Amino acid sequence: MHLPLVINVVARILLVASMAMFWPLLWALLEDPGSRETRAFVFSILISIAVGSCGLLILRKFWPIRSRDYDAIGAKDGLSIVGLSWISVSFVGALPFFLSGAIPSYTDAFFETVSGFTTTGATVLTGIRAFPPGILFWRSLTHWMGGMGIIVLTVALLPAIGRGAYRLYSAEAPGPSAERLQPTVKETAKTLWSVYFLLSLIETLFLILGGMTLFEALCHTFGTMATGGFSTRDASLAAFGPNIQWVVIIFMFLAGCSFILHFRALRGKPLVYFRSEEFRIYLGLMVVLVPVFSGILWLTGAGGGWEGIRHACFQIISILTTTGFTTTDFDLWPPFLKISLIVLMFIGGCAGSTGGGMKVVRVYVALKSGFKSIIRSILPNVVMPLKVDSKPVPEAYVVNAGAYFILYIFLFLLGTVVMTITDGADLVTAFSASVACLSNIGPGLGDVGASRNYAWISPEGKWFLSFLMLAGRLELYAILILFVPAAWRR
Amino acid sequence: MHLPLVINVVARILLVASMAMFWPLLWALLEDPGSRETRAFVFSILISIAVGSCGLLILRKFWPIRSRDYDAIGAKDGLSIVGLSWISVSFVGALPFFLSGAIPSYTDAFFETVSGFTTTGATVLTGIRAFPPGILFWRSLTHWMGGMGIIVLTVALLPAIGRGAYRLYSAEAPGPSAERLQPTVKETAKTLWSVYFLLSLIETLFLILGGMTLFEALCHTFGTMATGGFSTRDASLAAFGPNIQWVVIIFMFLAGCSFILHFRALRGKPLVYFRSEEFRIYLGLMVVLVPVFSGILWLTGAGGGWEGIRHACFQIISILTTTGFTTTDFDLWPPFLKISLIVLMFIGGCAGSTGGGMKVVRVYVALKSGFKSIIRSILPNVVMPLKVDSKPVPEAYVVNAGAYFILYIFLFLLGTVVMTITDGADLVTAFSASVACLSNIGPGLGDVGASRNYAWISPEGKWFLSFLMLAGRLELYAILILFVPAAWRR
Repeated sequence: MHLPLVINVVARILLVASMAMFWPLLWALLEDPGSRETRAFVFSILISIAVGSCGLLILRKFWPIRSRDYDAIGAKDGLSIVGLSWISVSFVGALPFFLSGAIPSYTDAFFETVSGFTTTGATVLTGIRAFPPGILFWRSLTHWMGGMGIIVLTVALLPAIGRGAYRLYSAEAPGPSAERLQPTVKETAKTLWSVYFLLSLIETLFLILGGMTLFEALCHTFGTMATGGFSTRDASLAAFGPNIQWVVIIFMFLAGCSFILHFRALRGKPLVYFRSEEFRIYLGLMVVLVPVFSGILWLTGAGGGWEGIRHACFQIISILTTTGFTTTDFDLWPPFLKISLIVLMFIGGCAGSTGGGMKVVRVYVALKSGFKSIIRSILPNVVMPLKVDSKPVPEAYVVNAGAYFILYIFLFLLGTVVMTITDGADLVTAFSASVACLSNIGPGLGDVGASRNYAWISPEGKWFLSFLMLAGRLELYAILILFVPAAWRR
Repeated sequence: MHLPLVINVVARILLVASMAMFWPLLWALLEDPGSRETRAFVFSILISIAVGSCGLLILRKFWPIRSRDYDAIGAKDGLSIVGLSWISVSFVGALPFFLSGAIPSYTDAFFETVSGFTTTGATVLTGIRAFPPGILFWRSLTHWMGGMGIIVLTVALLPAIGRGAYRLYSAEAPGPSAERLQPTVKETAKTLWSVYFLLSLIETLFLILGGMTLFEALCHTFGTMATGGFSTRDASLAAFGPNIQWVVIIFMFLAGCSFILHFRALRGKPLVYFRSEEFRIYLGLMVVLVPVFSGILWLTGAGGGWEGIRHACFQIISILTTTGFTTTDFDLWPPFLKISLIVLMFIGGCAGSTGGGMKVVRVYVALKSGFKSIIRSILPNVVMPLKVDSKPVPEAYVVNAGAYFILYIFLFLLGTVVMTITDGADLVTAFSASVACLSNIGPGLGDVGASRNYAWISPEGKWFLSFLMLAGRLELYAILILFVPAAWRR
């Protein structure tokens, strides 16, 4: 990689992202200007400005960057910038939690921040209502920033960094291919953030109408639209009534759809959703699973009637979109429902959504290529291009989806093994913690189930899970290449 | 498929395979000529002769097959013949268990037979020593036949079925590519069975020297060389002393190697093993894991000294080669060791061995293509052929290994979900039963662990697991194509 260039862009992204800490600072000031919390935010902002500007100044002195250098950002630089930006933003973002004393251990604070930015929602906190509002607001805001993307935000706000911006955008955008909605990446980034902002605004209004305070409405909107999962209550959404839960169900569903489709639909083409095969599968999963889940909950006496349907609906959407909000402890559900939820954890949301997981379209392409190999075994000489949306998919795309699937399973197994080593976790806890972090969901089963949290995990375990969360959010490559020596060479 | 041709070949295979029942009949006659067991074998042989010959006669009358038709066996026919032969041989092979009253339920008898032929070793029997010797001999003999392959055996014995034989051979041979050792497939099949026979003979002698009776030595040899796992004792190999266990360790290891390498080594080139990258990985896994396992068993007090090393060695080799013999209840081992064994279950033996699983080389190629995609993400324009044994692997081979990996994981997840539906199994039991059957291992964890068995599983569950065992043994395609309508068309 072109190290000075990478450091330059990372420093700019760090500066932009840390400005977001002014919002929780505002809440802290409203609450109590003299509190330790207020000071923590002020210090954190100062530290990040100092680190970012010093980096830029030193760089300017020794390796001046010309504006045309930005055009030369290659695949390697793009991925490295994204990976390193997310890591540095997480290190700085953890400061308010640590400095305010809300989370006394820096490892825990880092874990919570990574969990926030990656929209995982795995938490180490209990007794959440006792925490100061600025801290809770920051915790939820990290979700919202990470959901649509720190880089996408920076690209939208920063003075032009030229053609290199597309590299950054596509390295962070969820899904196998990054579509440009507008002629320039800057415009695309702005458009996506506008759609995201608009939907968030609507959800906030609905939640306030449903009875939440402005503070709670904002925090839960951040958690929903980013498919994050941090709540301001220990009981998560179980602390609120059915109306609120239905609102969250609808907006989780929307957050799991491609924002490119939302944009087109808002432009007056609402049928655009149904022309997407990925959306039809995503919707189909809900349509099939909700009755099955409700039926089984009713038959096994775990919950009947409207309440059962609501819990089924909520948990299926929450897990499939990788949000991780809970209305009930699904660890108590029958094994069939639990294993189905685990399978959904691997699938995740649609490409171009804020959801995690492997993405519906990738799983679809990978499975389709698997099934196609059955046909190929009996008809070896027939050429059958794999189609999505009735269009043939390039061979390289299919190979990449397969490679992604294999790497994902490998990281999942690695995570499971590591959890048994670092924490002696039982198998269900180990594998559900691994997939819940890799797919950015949050709650798993067993000791990391809906009624438990991640506080008990050892520091080594937390660092490893943080790595899994980052790898999962950035679709593996932006993080994994940092371990490849070739990536560090120029 | 060319149905008359397929039925013709399947009927021949059935006739050849059912002749093997003469051996257990011999044991039954030696024991007690008038027993129900003896009659069961006589009836079973008669039934299979009747079914096979009637099939052939009716066929000859209506759709005469000319000898050159055999040359026209295509990929579709070859796979169908292999799939249907294994299914029919299993249906017939279950008769002695059922007719003798040893296993009163036909579902159970079928499960046990499929488990035998596929070299899985999952059993529904307890109090094994009380069963008549003919039954136990047949149970173990199914392992031995299935290990090197029913079709390979038939090809070696049957009057020439021409060039079509290669289709059958390659459809049954374990591993992604079927190598021919001799100019003709018939010779290759004979050679492989000779090597297999020779190694089996040597093991039998060693086991007798170690103190087993001829009967026990034969049964355990069948279980070892086929990487099966049926024992004549409830306690499996724990019922025997360390010497016997070391003999079994060595021969399990050999059974998990490619028999093509054994043949070359026996021809006076013992270094041929180390020129195979797959063998080096297979050996490397043992070399790394045995000290780690022994160390952990010693540290956690689960077993120290030579005993711990022996248990570690035995269980690692038994699981990696997918044999499934046990010397200790590894369900009581620490979680790290249990999850490591589960990972080994997916890997399995080498291509061209009698072991199950995905095969070392396939997992290696799949993972390598996954890791290669990391490099490709930073160097999109560099062509890097994937190499095995220092030779570039064709792109189609890599794509197939990926597709195989995806299908395997899919079937594994499907099996896990089905087990929770049919039997309400807990998650650990469900996923370990699924992989233990798909990879042809036998014992899993939880309720199908080393100290338990499969008797408690519902009939639906047993039929589904039988399907998984067959799919796993025949490397998916020969079974899966039977569900594809296009395969049944001519």
